[in-house]
Order: sequence, then C-alpha cells, then structure tokens
Amino acid sequence: MPLRNIAVGRPEEATHPDALKAALAEFISTLIFVFAGSGSGMAFNKLTDNGATTPSGLVSASLAHGFALFVAVSVGANISGGHVNPAVTFGAFVGGNITLLRGILYWIAQLLGSTVACLLLKFATGDLGVPAFALSSGVGVSNALVFEIVMTFGLVYTVYATAVDPKRGSLGTIAPLAIGLIVAANILAGGAFDGAS
Amino acid sequence: MPLRNIAVGRPEEATHPDALKAALAEFISTLIFVFAGSGSGMAFNKLTDNGATTPSGLVSASLAHGFALFVAVSVGANISGGHVNPAVTFGAFVGGNITLLRGILYWIAQLLGSTVACLLLKFATGDLGVPAFALSSGVGVSNALVFEIVMTFGLVYTVYATAVDPKRGSLGTIAPLAIGLIVAANILAGGAFDGAS
Amino acid sequence: MPLRNIAVGRPEEATHPDALKAALAEFISTLIFVFAGSGSGMAFNKLTDNGATTPSGLVSASLAHGFALFVAVSVGANISGGHVNPAVTFGAFVGGNITLLRGILYWIAQLLGSTVACLLLKFATGDLGVPAFALSSGVGVSNALVFEIVMTFGLVYTVYATAVDPKRGSLGTIAPLAIGLIVAANILAGGAFDGAS
Amino acid sequence: MPLRNIAVGRPEEATHPDALKAALAEFISTLIFVFAGSGSGMAFNKLTDNGATTPSGLVSASLAHGFALFVAVSVGANISGGHVNPAVTFGAFVGGNITLLRGILYWIAQLLGSTVACLLLKFATGDLGVPAFALSSGVGVSNALVFEIVMTFGLVYTVYATAVDPKRGSLGTIAPLAIGLIVAANILAGGAFDGAS
Repeated sequence: MPLRNIAVGRPEEATHPDALKAALAEFISTLIFVFAGSGSGMAFNKLTDNGATTPSGLVSASLAHGFALFVAVSVGANISGGHVNPAVTFGAFVGGNITLLRGILYWIAQLLGSTVACLLLKFATGDLGVPAFALSSGVGVSNALVFEIVMTFGLVYTVYATAVDPKRGSLGTIAPLAIGLIVAANILAGGAFDGAS
Repeated sequence: MPLRNIAVGRPEEATHPDALKAALAEFISTLIFVFAGSGSGMAFNKLTDNGATTPSGLVSASLAHGFALFVAVSVGANISGGHVNPAVTFGAFVGGNITLLRGILYWIAQLLGSTVACLLLKFATGDLGVPAFALSSGVGVSNALVFEIVMTFGLVYTVYATAVDPKRGSLGTIAPLAIGLIVAANILAGGAFDGAS
Repeated sequence: MPLRNIAVGRPEEATHPDALKAALAEFISTLIFVFAGSGSGMAFNKLTDNGATTPSGLVSASLAHGFALFVAVSVGANISGGHVNPAVTFGAFVGGNITLLRGILYWIAQLLGSTVACLLLKFATGDLGVPAFALSSGVGVSNALVFEIVMTFGLVYTVYATAVDPKRGSLGTIAPLAIGLIVAANILAGGAFDGAS
Repeated sequence: MPLRNIAVGRPEEATHPDALKAALAEFISTLIFVFAGSGSGMAFNKLTDNGATTPSGLVSASLAHGFALFVAVSVGANISGGHVNPAVTFGAFVGGNITLLRGILYWIAQLLGSTVACLLLKFATGDLGVPAFALSSGVGVSNALVFEIVMTFGLVYTVYATAVDPKRGSLGTIAPLAIGLIVAANILAGGAFDGAS
C-alpha cells in the first residue's frame, strides 16, 4: 500500500450520480446495521430491566450485529463496496481503493444512516436510550482500547483479505459473511468487559 | 422502477402449468417458513409456561425465523423466485418482475401455506394457540409500526439488492442467506417490544 | 418421478470400489453428525442434571444438529452425495438417483456410523445414556408424528430443490447449508414438544 | 496419501518472501481465532463469576470459536491455506501439501499468534486468566481424549474434503464455513464434559 495510492479525487466526483448512488447505498446499509445492532441492545435492556449482561444477552447482541452487518455489506457490495463502518472506509482510502472526496461522502452517509436508525429506534420504543456507537455497544471505554484495536484490525483485515484482494477468487462470495461474523465473534469475546466498568 | 413496468398479465397465465408450479413452490416455501417460525414461538411458550420473553427466547425465535426463511427462499428460488412473504411479492409486482395475476396466485398460495402450517402446528401440539402472522410474531401492534416498516423495507431492499438485481454477480449465491438473516437480525432488535404491550 | 426410475442395480455394484468409498463417506458423515448432535443433548443433560429443556438448551441442540449436518453433507457431497439420513437415501432411491443395492449399502453405513458415534460418546462421557435416534432426539413419539412428517418432508424437499435438481445453478453451493439449517429451524419448532410427554 | 508425498523442503524456502508472507498470514489468522475464542471463555467467566458452564455459555463459546475460525480460515485461505490449527498443518504435511520446513514455519507462526492473542487478552481484561489451549478450551484432559480425537479427526477430514480435495468443485466456496462450524458443533457436544472434571 504505497502512499502514492492515496488520491484526493476531483470535486466533480462528489456530485456525480454514481457517487451519490453509492452514498445512498452506504446510508441504507448503515441504517440497516445500526437499527438491528443497537435495537438488540435496547431489547436486552428492556427484557431484563437494564440488568447485567448475561451470556444469552451476549449471544443475542453478537448475532444481531453479525447478521445485520453481513446483510448490510451484501446489499451495498455492488454499489458502494458495502463499507458500513467509517474505519473500513478509512482503510479503503489509505489502500487507494477510494478517493478522499468519496470517502468523506461515505462518512457523511454513514453518520446520517446511523443517526436516522437511532431516531427510528427512539421513536419506535418510546424514547428508550440508544447506545451512541453501534460497533462499540457493549464495550467500555477505559479498558477496552485494546479490544477496539484488535477488533477493528480484524474487521479491516477481513475486508481486505476477502472482499478487496484481487486474488480472492471464490472467497469473494462469502466475504460479506466473513465480515459480519468476525464482528459477531469479537462481540462474544469483548462484549462482557464493560458490564462492570 | 417506472410504472410502465407494472403488468396485469393474461388470464391464461394463471392456469399455465408454470404458474401453478410456481404457486405450489410458494405454498411449500411458506409452509416450511411458518411451521418453523411459529412453531418456535409455541415451543418457547410451552417451555416457559407462557412466561415473559427472555434473551434466550429471542435468540431462539430469531434463529428459527432466519434459518427457515433462508431455506424457504433457497428451495423456491429457481421455481417461483422464493418470495414467501406477500410484501416481497408486492415489491416484485411494483418493480415489474411479476404480473398482477401471478402475484395474486402467489398471495393465495402463501395464505394457504401459512394456514396449513398453522393447522399442522395446532394438531401436532394439541391445540396450543398459534400466532396469527408469522413475520410479525413477537412484535406488537401499537408501538411497532415503525419496526414493521423498517423491517419490511430492509427485507424487500435485501431481496432486490441480492436476488433481483441483474448486476448482483456472485452475491446471488448467498442471497437467500442474506434474506433469512436480515429477518433474524431484526427479530433480535424488534422482538422484545411487545412483551410489555 | 416415474417408477421406471427405480433401479435395483447389479450385484457387482455393491463391491465396486466406488460404492465402497461412497459407503465409507456415508459412515464418516453420519458419525460426525450423530456425534455432535447426540453429544449436545448429553451435554445439556449433564449441565442441567437432566433438567427440563429450556430455550437455551433448544438453541444449543438446534445449532449442534444444524451445523453438524451442514458439515456432514459438505464433506460427503462429492463422494456419496452426503445423504447422512436414511430418509434422504430413500428419497434418492425413489427418485431414481441411486440404485437399491447402493441404497442398502448407504443404510448399513449410516447405521454403523450412528452406532460408532454413540459408542464413542458413551465411552467419552463415562456411560451416560445416548438418545437412540439422532434426528428425532428431543422429539417425542405420541404427539410428534406430524412434526416428524413435516420435518422429514422439509428435509427431503430441501435436498431435492437445492442439491439434486439439475437446474439448481449457484444454489448448489449453499445446498449443504440449507439442508443443515432446515433441521436446525425445525428443532427449534418441534424440540420442545416432548419434554412433557 | 503415500509416504513419498512427504517432503522436507529446501532451506532457502524458509526465508523465501512467499513463505514468510504465508507465515505472517498464519500468525494473524491464529491471533484472530484465539482472541475471539479464548476471549469468549473469559467473558463467560467474568459474567458468571467463574460459575459452572450453562447451555447459554456453551452456545456462546461455540459460536465464538466457530465464527472466528471461519473468518480466520477465510482470510488466510489464499495466502497460507488458512491452517490456523497445528493439527491441520500436520495433516497437510503428511498429505504432501506442504513441506516440513514450511510446516515448522507455520507452527512457529501459530504459536506466536496464539501467544500474542493471550497477552492482548490478559492486558485488555486486567490480568484475567487465559485458557492455555484455544481449541481445547472447555474440554478436560482425563475423559476428553476421545472427544479430542473425534473432533480433530472431524476437523482435518473436513479440511481435506472441502478445501484440499481437487475435485471439491463449488464446495470450495463454503469450505471455511464448514471448517468453522464443525468446531462449533463439536464444542456444543464436548464442551460440557469438563465442567465437572
């Protein structure tokens, strides 16, 4: 990934129909992911009266995030690449797969998608609190930096190895599943370590 | 999706062997889906004496609906398109993928499949109550309209992006899995918000 | 499926290396499936001191059977067709896909595989009881005939629609997954209705 | 698998960029797998104050190991073959798929990946104990030899039948999923039999 791969992109690009269509795809994918992911956390809180996380709750959060991310990546794959996550967009930018302008467009779309999903959840559940960041729901701040780094590394590495790598071959078919399930697996590992913090 | 894509279809079509074969496939797919989906809800009620939903029960309902829908779509994909859900059939009609007559045929088949599945469940379990609508089992009426809209939107969007889109490429292979798991993910998010209502 | 498709097969066939290799594949696939499937039931009994089935236990049994059947079908698919289940072998015989002699060979192999799996489980767990029939573990006898019929129908129909149908196209890739997960879904639906019987 | 397939390999090989790249891929894959797998065990201990394993805990451990192994195999598949497990590397060596030198390189990489994953987990969780062997976490020593043999046999057999077999056809696409889920299924079967020992 030499730095010369990084590209700013021409200003026209940001208003090009293709770029806007891709941004719309990112918006919808992120909305789908955050709605199911954060919604499952709220569902757990509702069912247990905000009780402590249990192994069942962890399984539920893990599957909701994993399945929803798999679908979000699948539906966006052919239009925008199905990034969903700003970290993946950043990785694609550093690797020279998208230009800076398109990356910013994606970030805005992801932010809007996440916001709309939270508003919809808030409305649908009668003003229950929504976790602010979908991917880190269930993970604390103080002792969780390592978790976040390893999980984000695993996610971006998986995206590169299965979806971006031109030599991926038939792996490309199951790339969205791998991307979704690495998040599911890491939530099972890291999701418990904020219940106490 | 311009409106000129909408087609009524010729009357002969509804009695054509192909259309009847497709309707039979819809009937069986819907039966498979509703049998496992509603059956899992009844199983939970039985195991917990109609107790309140728990995270485990949500996981169980989510996996039963998700896995069964995945299979129902898979087995119908090559014959009828594997709609299973009237909303998907409606979306396919609006998008010009099927004619009105065939859509009505599918709806009748889906209704019959769902009814037969419920009767079989009732018989097999000794007259336990069956939830009336498979897809919305576990979701209430009053505060759940937004959930229903987002979930149905996610489902139809997923069907279009992975199974109908002619540019889907290798995504078509995992389309049935994406369709099943978006329902599984959304049940984990929305399934808890009727236990109290 | 006209009856003329049914074939007895020549006696030499049963001792042909290909048939023996296929029977060995059936033996190993069935062993893998029954070991994980029945083992998960024993694990639940151990963890709960033979307590009543819970939703968590149902999820565990469902995933163990579904995942193991998926793998058992996958590893056998190219050698024997990955039947694993005598009912599937029977369906393949009626449909004219295998001869009677080969079917009997498969049945013997499946029976042996299941027996060896149970003996291994018995030995490994220190003589805990093993459910006699893997596929029906967790399903009673009296009120479960309908469950068995629908589940077996769903299984054989799924095998035909995704793995045998010559027009299956890319569905063949996920056929083993569909076959495994229809069993997983049906266990979630039907698995609870023998705890009381 | 005749013995003449076994090859030692030339010394230069071990320092060849390709071999080092493959070893790095093994290192990262093993790190991803052990981090999620062992992390989920630590999460369970944390959530239940080191309480006895429950069916929910078993499901959680099973999904974490299965999903993470699926991803670890996927991301490594095109570079190193995605062995992750020393037993698989040994099987590939005996079968003549890799040379002795490369196998040793893989083992070192796997050992390092596993060690780094444990150190990261220890750091992230504030010095909680980490199970020493990822694949056997949740399985005891005394009565578990049969479990280990059957599980390892199932794993290596699955790898051969779906990922190595040159006649695997479209099965190759779902090979990583089969490899991950056979471990998930076997954990559900065998994972309970050390809680008491």
